[in-house]
This record gives sequence, C-alpha cells and structure tokens, in this order.
Amino acid sequence: MSPDLHVIIPAGGAGTRLWPLSRQSRPKFLLDLTGSGRTLLQATVDRMEPRAASMRVVTGAEHRDAVVAQLPEFNGARVDRQVVVEPSGRDSMPAIGLATALVREQYGDEALIGSFAADHVIARPDLFLAALDAACAAARRGFVTTIGITPTRASTAYGYIRPGHHLEEEGPRGVRVASAFIEKPDAATAGVYVAQGYLWNAGMFVAQAGVLMGHLSRTHPDLAGGLTRIAQTWDGPRRETVLAQTWPTLTKISIDHAIAEPVAAHGGVAVAAADVNLGWTDLGDFEALSELSAGSGDAVNIDAHGVTVFDGASGQTVALVGVEDLIVVTTPDAVLVARRSAAQDVKRVVGTLKDAGRTDLV
Amino acid sequence: MSPDLHVIIPAGGAGTRLWPLSRQSRPKFLLDLTGSGRTLLQATVDRMEPRAASMRVVTGAEHRDAVVAQLPEFNGARVDRQVVVEPSGRDSMPAIGLATALVREQYGDEALIGSFAADHVIARPDLFLAALDAACAAARRGFVTTIGITPTRASTAYGYIRPGHHLEEEGPRGVRVASAFIEKPDAATAGVYVAQGYLWNAGMFVAQAGVLMGHLSRTHPDLAGGLTRIAQTWDGPRRETVLAQTWPTLTKISIDHAIAEPVAAHGGVAVAAADVNLGWTDLGDFEALSELSAGSGDAVNIDAHGVTVFDGASGQTVALVGVEDLIVVTTPDAVLVARRSAAQDVKRVVGTLKDAGRTDLV
Repeated sequence: MSPDLHVIIPAGGAGTRLWPLSRQSRPKFLLDLTGSGRTLLQATVDRMEPRAASMRVVTGAEHRDAVVAQLPEFNGARVDRQVVVEPSGRDSMPAIGLATALVREQYGDEALIGSFAADHVIARPDLFLAALDAACAAARRGFVTTIGITPTRASTAYGYIRPGHHLEEEGPRGVRVASAFIEKPDAATAGVYVAQGYLWNAGMFVAQAGVLMGHLSRTHPDLAGGLTRIAQTWDGPRRETVLAQTWPTLTKISIDHAIAEPVAAHGGVAVAAADVNLGWTDLGDFEALSELSAGSGDAVNIDAHGVTVFDGASGQTVALVGVEDLIVVTTPDAVLVARRSAAQDVKRVVGTLKDAGRTDLV
Repeated sequence: MSPDLHVIIPAGGAGTRLWPLSRQSRPKFLLDLTGSGRTLLQATVDRMEPRAASMRVVTGAEHRDAVVAQLPEFNGARVDRQVVVEPSGRDSMPAIGLATALVREQYGDEALIGSFAADHVIARPDLFLAALDAACAAARRGFVTTIGITPTRASTAYGYIRPGHHLEEEGPRGVRVASAFIEKPDAATAGVYVAQGYLWNAGMFVAQAGVLMGHLSRTHPDLAGGLTRIAQTWDGPRRETVLAQTWPTLTKISIDHAIAEPVAAHGGVAVAAADVNLGWTDLGDFEALSELSAGSGDAVNIDAHGVTVFDGASGQTVALVGVEDLIVVTTPDAVLVARRSAAQDVKRVVGTLKDAGRTDLV
C-alpha cells in the first residue's frame, strides 16, 4: 500500500486509572508502560509510519514540549509531521475534527484521515495494518470506517460495535456495515454481545476528510463551521485570534456521539474486524497493564499470589507476605496498593487527592 | 520505695518481624515505634528510673554508639549508668549473667538485679512499678521472681507461666510460686491456659545477684564460672584479654532454659502478676504494633478496611483501593505489603533477602 493516510493521533487524557504511574503532568501516552523502550505515543507513531502520508499529534499546550521531546521530527520543521495544540480539552470530536479540517484544507476532500489514540498498545502491527488497509478501502468508498477489535473476553471496560451485513462483493474483505455503537455494558450483556459476534470499539476511525466533515456539518453544524473557520486561518497571521475566539465556543462532544452513533444509524459507518490475534489493549487500568506485563521492579515473594508490582522509578524493593490478587505500584512520592478487581476505582484516588488539594500528587 | 534495684536492660535482636522499619543496623529497640518521641530503649530506661540504683544496657559492639547517642548519661562518665558491650550475641543468659556478675562484684550477693527487655512497651508504668515492687519483695526472700502479664487474649506469640500456690501469708500480696514455664502454645492450648489463669512470660526477672548466680552455678557451672571470671577482671587491665578468651566459650542459652525452667521445677521461682490494665506488649510484629498505633504517614482510603500504614521516613503517600486486612510499610529503600494475619512471616523476608545477598536491605 502507498502511504496515503493522513494520520491523526489525539493525545489527551491523564489516564487516572494508572495513577501513580500516570500524572497530569506525565500522562499515560508519554510513558513506556510496556517496557519496550518506546512510550505509547512513540509506539503509535512507529505503528502508523508505513501508511502515513502525514501525521498530526493533537495535544494540550501543557504537553506540547514533552511530545516534541519524544518525537523530534514533530518539531515544526516538517509540514507532514505536526503537533496541533488545542487551547483546551473539548473531548475527542473537536480535537479530531480540527486535524481533519486541517487535512482537508491542505490535501482536499478526498484525502483519507485516520484517527488512532496515542495510548493504546497493539502486539501485532502486521495484523493491524491488514485491518487498516481494509478500513481504508471502505473509507475510499465513502464510509466512515472503524477498526473493530475481536473480543477475547466479555469485557465491561469497552464499548461494543454491532456488525451488520457485509459490504457488497466488490467491497474489501471482512468489512461490514456497523449497525450500532453501544456503550460499555454490564457483565451479562457483555457475554451476550461477545456470543453474538459484536466487536470492541477501540475508537479508531478512517474516513475521507470531506465525508467526515460533511457528516459533522449535518450532525453539529456549528462545530463543523467553527473547525473549518479555524482551519482556514491556521497558516496565516490570524490563527491565534480566530482560535481564541472560536475554540471555547465549540461543543464538547466525543466522536462516538457526534459521528459514529448517528451516522451508523443511517448506514454510513463500516467496521473492519481485526484478527483475533491483534493483541490490542487500551491499558485502561492496572488489570489491563498486568495482563501485558509481569510487572517491573524488585519484589520478594513470601506466600503471595497474583500480585503485580510496578516500579515507577522509586527503586524500592517490595516485599509481599501472604497477600493475593493485588496491584502494588511504587513511585518516589506515592504508593498504590489496590485489589486487582478494583483496578477501575484507582481513578477515585486522583479525585480524592484533588479534593484534598494535593495537586502535587495528581 | 527506695531506688535499690540494679537494672539490666538486654538490648539485642534486630526485630526481623518489623522489617523494613527495623534493620540489623537500626534494631527495634532504637526506634520510636509508638510515636511518643522516645525510642523503646529510652522509654525502658525512663520506666525503670524510679527504682534504679544502677542501670546497665547490655548490647553488641555495633550498637554501642547508637545506644550512647540515645542515652547520653550512659557515656561512661557515671559508674551507675553503663553500657556493657557483648563481644558477640550468645543469647540472653550470658548477657544478663554478665551484668548480674558485674553487679555482684560491685554491690555484693544481696544486691537486687532486675532484667527487662529494651524493646517492650508498657502503657501504665504505675501498674508496672506496683508489680515490680511485689516482685522485688519476693526476690529479697530468695526467689527468682518474674513479673507475669495477665493475658488479654489467647495469644500464641508468647510463652506462658503456670502460677502455683500463693507465697505464705507474710509474703508480698499477689505473688505466687511459678510452677512451670511453658513455650508458645498452639491456639487451642493457649485458650486453655488463659482460662486456667496462666500468665504471659515477658522475660522480666528480679533476683538477688547471689541467688541468680548460685542457681546458674548449679545448672551451668561453666557458664557461671566464665561470667564470674570476666566480672572479676572487668575493671582492670585484663578485661579485654579475659573477655576475648572466655566469651566465645560460653554456652549459648536463654535465661528461660538456664534458670527459669529448671529452678521453677524445684520451687525456686515466684511470679508477681501485673494488673490486667498494664498494657504490655513486646511489639513482636506489625499486628502487635497496629494494636498500639493507628499507623503513621499519609494514606488515601478508597473502600479499604483494616489496613494499617506505617511510614518509615519514606514520605510517600499511600493510596489503598479495595483492600482489606493489610499492613503496609514504606521506607526509602523497601516497601512491605503483608496480610495482617501473616505478620509473623515478615521475618522470612529478611531471610530471603540475606539468601539473595541483599545485605543492604536487612
């Protein structure tokens, strides 16, 4: 395949369920959580490189320097490697929409954009590229196309995609219409979804820039108009003025709510199912992280079982005595001891610390 | 009461069940585990002060400087406040016996000695002194007298004392013959002992110096002879020579085995029962420590129950999520996460670290 995809990498979200490894000032995407030697953001760029005509990382002003430090080719010297700085976080649709509008300005309506989170992990990039190529083919035919993850368990941590009929014969292989996007279910419902062949929604979208902006013009015309106005003045002297005037007025909304759900309801979304061996995870919490990693750091185990220890540069030796099913994380200023099954509640620590004014720790 | 007791404070034992707070280089008796502002050793000296004609802290050479740093009046300037340095640890009988022999040399056979561990806690010193006075009265009548702790639960962590008949009418009130010293029992046996009025053995012994040395001469004549020989040369030019020649040959044995058990079998031991509200603990493990202390340090609690956190100067905030019945201890180089009911197994961490050559951590 020729590298004709304009890659958008929204890099936001602190990853509060991975506290104390992740912090507001050191969010998840800036961390090497897999021990690969590359941060999640760097690995995302690496993974997209074979198909990228251009790449845009969309992030907040507070992370711009850290992003460029990790991705030196995004320092502004190359027009096809850009950091797009959001004045403030307004959820995923304005972030992805701005980058899409910028692509459309530069490359035209038919340019293919693909948006991929900066903080996910994929074990098999080859299988990812196969699914991506199928998704791109469907996107070229006018679909907003998502890459659906074949579930490996009845997870309640992800939204699901209900696949509909296969695209007609001349369509790309394995691509179906996405008949609905469904929010995170309870455990029983998740089991039903998996049995019925639903796919996980990993928030990966491929579309022609004009198609995506066209849908947005219908579902949220003010948002589409604002993004277009910003994009049209982006490379001129009025960028900051227009951005400062327009950005704060934009609707805060996710791409799922703004595009995927309403457009799917009218048959405009396709889903390319990735191979079951893809090895995707959003590393959403320590449970997910410990599935990927045996942990890090120095531990002494006395009758302990099912405990994963992560050393966030504290250098401390951790001794475990008679304990079970825990996550233990040490960092220089904070230690987490969590029941594995309560991993999703770790985000509540961050809330509690904020309420207590401990901004130094969040 | 006049201060006529020659106090012996054996200060040994690393307290490996309190790792990582206690270390070989920073043993339990040198720590302020109660948050009182005084270390366990200092509090022991404070507690004995009202009855002390003299005090001797018996410790290893490696802790001599730390002991003097905590007890400046033991710097050698005062003949009635001495640090007695053991060349090597040979269990409690040689340590206590050496100090007893020194007291006998200096003050004569009838001088009362009392030996009290450096790392126990007593909540009510007034009740302790009442029991001590009763014990001293019995000791003056020729008994080796121990202070028995009235049990507050069926503990398996302590040895027990079986009380026999009360001393004859003219004897001190509440003092009975100790008919047997019994090793740590299992839980069922402990329940029976408590129901039958047995007392805990806290290793506190009061006796006339001549009586104690006389018993030792019968049970372990070589040990008694060696200690006497060392004591006789202690204040002369041959101290180091005799000590170096004799000490390594002395029998390694506890005072329980050398004196308490065999002498009790012949009716020579008495026990003064302390008031049930004494509040004694040997702080033998983190379970015992957490009964005394709500913990220290900065903790965030999210659905956690029964967790005690101790900050050993790490300064880290500890967040607990969905966990129960744990002990969490943070120190700059080591963290412990232990099930409360496995608190006694913490000592196995120290063994494992030694086996792994991590002498920096033990």
